[in-house]
Amino acid sequence: MIKSKTKLKELYSAQAPLYLEKGGRLPRVRVAYETYGRLNAAGDNALLVCHALTGDAHAAGLTSVDNTLLRQIPLYAAKKKELPGWWDGLIGPGKALDTERYFVICSNVLGSCYGTSGPASVDGDGGREWKGGFPEVTVRDMVKVQKKLLDELGVRRLQTVIGGSLGGMQALEWAVSYPRQVRSVIPIATAARHSAWAIGFSHLMRQAIKNDPGWREGAYTVPPARGLSLARQIGMISYRTDISFQRRFAYKKNAEKGQFEVESYLSYQGDKLVERFDANSFILLTEAMDSHDLGRDRGGVEQALASVKASALCVGIDSDLLYPAHEQREIAGGIPGARYHEIRSRHGHDAFLIEYDQLEKIIKPFLNGL
Amino acid sequence: MIKSKTKLKELYSAQAPLYLEKGGRLPRVRVAYETYGRLNAAGDNALLVCHALTGDAHAAGLTSVDNTLLRQIPLYAAKKKELPGWWDGLIGPGKALDTERYFVICSNVLGSCYGTSGPASVDGDGGREWKGGFPEVTVRDMVKVQKKLLDELGVRRLQTVIGGSLGGMQALEWAVSYPRQVRSVIPIATAARHSAWAIGFSHLMRQAIKNDPGWREGAYTVPPARGLSLARQIGMISYRTDISFQRRFAYKKNAEKGQFEVESYLSYQGDKLVERFDANSFILLTEAMDSHDLGRDRGGVEQALASVKASALCVGIDSDLLYPAHEQREIAGGIPGARYHEIRSRHGHDAFLIEYDQLEKIIKPFLNGL
Repeated sequence: MIKSKTKLKELYSAQAPLYLEKGGRLPRVRVAYETYGRLNAAGDNALLVCHALTGDAHAAGLTSVDNTLLRQIPLYAAKKKELPGWWDGLIGPGKALDTERYFVICSNVLGSCYGTSGPASVDGDGGREWKGGFPEVTVRDMVKVQKKLLDELGVRRLQTVIGGSLGGMQALEWAVSYPRQVRSVIPIATAARHSAWAIGFSHLMRQAIKNDPGWREGAYTVPPARGLSLARQIGMISYRTDISFQRRFAYKKNAEKGQFEVESYLSYQGDKLVERFDANSFILLTEAMDSHDLGRDRGGVEQALASVKASALCVGIDSDLLYPAHEQREIAGGIPGARYHEIRSRHGHDAFLIEYDQLEKIIKPFLNGL
Repeated sequence: MIKSKTKLKELYSAQAPLYLEKGGRLPRVRVAYETYGRLNAAGDNALLVCHALTGDAHAAGLTSVDNTLLRQIPLYAAKKKELPGWWDGLIGPGKALDTERYFVICSNVLGSCYGTSGPASVDGDGGREWKGGFPEVTVRDMVKVQKKLLDELGVRRLQTVIGGSLGGMQALEWAVSYPRQVRSVIPIATAARHSAWAIGFSHLMRQAIKNDPGWREGAYTVPPARGLSLARQIGMISYRTDISFQRRFAYKKNAEKGQFEVESYLSYQGDKLVERFDANSFILLTEAMDSHDLGRDRGGVEQALASVKASALCVGIDSDLLYPAHEQREIAGGIPGARYHEIRSRHGHDAFLIEYDQLEKIIKPFLNGL
């Protein structure tokens, strides 16, 4: 497995701040990112990988988490010392995103809690944590920051922008915001505009956090653990399917805990997120997802999709509950010349983090055919 | 519309208490019920209608809620003065459950909060509310109490037992517990044993309530409003579909509340339940559903289904997320000679409370053919 290293870069300045779409302003933005492979002299062999809601920059390889990095990204403490990246199955020498050939970049999104500026980072006024006071961000803002990072890294053209879920929203935004830099996009199990259904799930998750008295309107010092755990568990259900749960847990009981295995599993997943994610980031990023609308100030979604010049490979998952396959077919139908491929899986939305073989079989020929 | 009246009956006694499946004992059980139509002399023209999680005995007609009834069932206060029953579309003269021909009974289940003994009823020791101290109940216990009620009413044979969701679980239990009394069953969108998926949703809902500091381990005097509201909202999502949400709410915003219409809708539905349902009952009944297992102490689900002597019409809903159609087909496949019919609807699980035309077209010929 390749070695990887999360790096940090400071972007923007008091003279040239980041202006956010909803009106906020950030004079200083730190971005955490990883890169794999080498950028060619023309700066045009790059691939951008975009992560989902609770993801981070560590997409591939083994990152060694040292003390310096831990001071910069405290929530990396929840990672094992040497943990493969979240999409390592797809990124590496000879893999779907071939690091022998491409320069692959993944950066933690604006507003997250893994090194990039967000509610938990200490780059607010006077070096304090932003907490609930971090300004509202949008998917478009996330992409703007990524563009700035790529400019700094000398990347001139992206062969593709790829991602699932929130990552797919970024891919679509890239195609519309920076058409000349983006040769192709691979949006997976995502939305061109967040649906009422997906907003409904976000609404439940945010309430779970906000109902926790420990949340204190975002001003907590100790995390609102029960609320964040429940939020994650609500999310988990939306990412899976009844069939995958039945295969895995059936009717098994956890005698020790006096509950069903599926209950222990969900609670465990919830508790794990409490250790590794910030509640304010969770709220901020779900709000960014809810506000996602590729057509905002662009004459509507249809017109925005129709304007896409990049080649597009849209990927749906037949069992996806949260971003259903019919929604992916609509996205593909709206982009001129787009291809559509459907992954068959019992795993639901999370299939984009599981079904590597199917993804590789779709992605490789697409990239080779560009 | 027919006139209806919720009546109350005391069952059991200190000498002959209700022994519960999980070991509890209730010397006094009050049951709220409604009847429509007339019982014939043979006592064999009865139909039993079983309600779902937050349902009540008021299945049909207009019930006049007077002050006497309000003292007995305080949560009826949340009902409009004259509210049609929850299945009025199916019950009445000439309707699918024809009250000209049949004697139709619906009773509030054991553990609920609409007149039948449960955590909020004041028939605990010393005339106190049970609150969190109400003993664990099962679907089998609910059916046992219904049987006792029917005996008291002089019902000797049920032409059918029908219900959706928790109501369908009762229908299946009836067929296995009292095979000689049950000529047919119509279980709709239900489970022979609660799936890991459905238990997962229950787990989320219970946590939403228990995370509310106002819950106080069930000893609340003021309801844990935010927790119960969130529990209901989690339920609502499991009862609907992405397509129904999209058709209804699309991307509309509620400018006044500064949120999406779907968020306002979910919160409104949650708040409405707080006014009309008891949090301890909610926990108790979801636990009863999770423990539902037609095959317990009967050699397993397959053997229990195979033992059913009643004619069975199993009904699935093509878009049901919570009790998927494939689960209904499995139930039908396990009952000798069972018929299966699938409702086509975009409404998901709640279709059994919406698609009256389709239900009537299935139920009428089935009952006529008995």
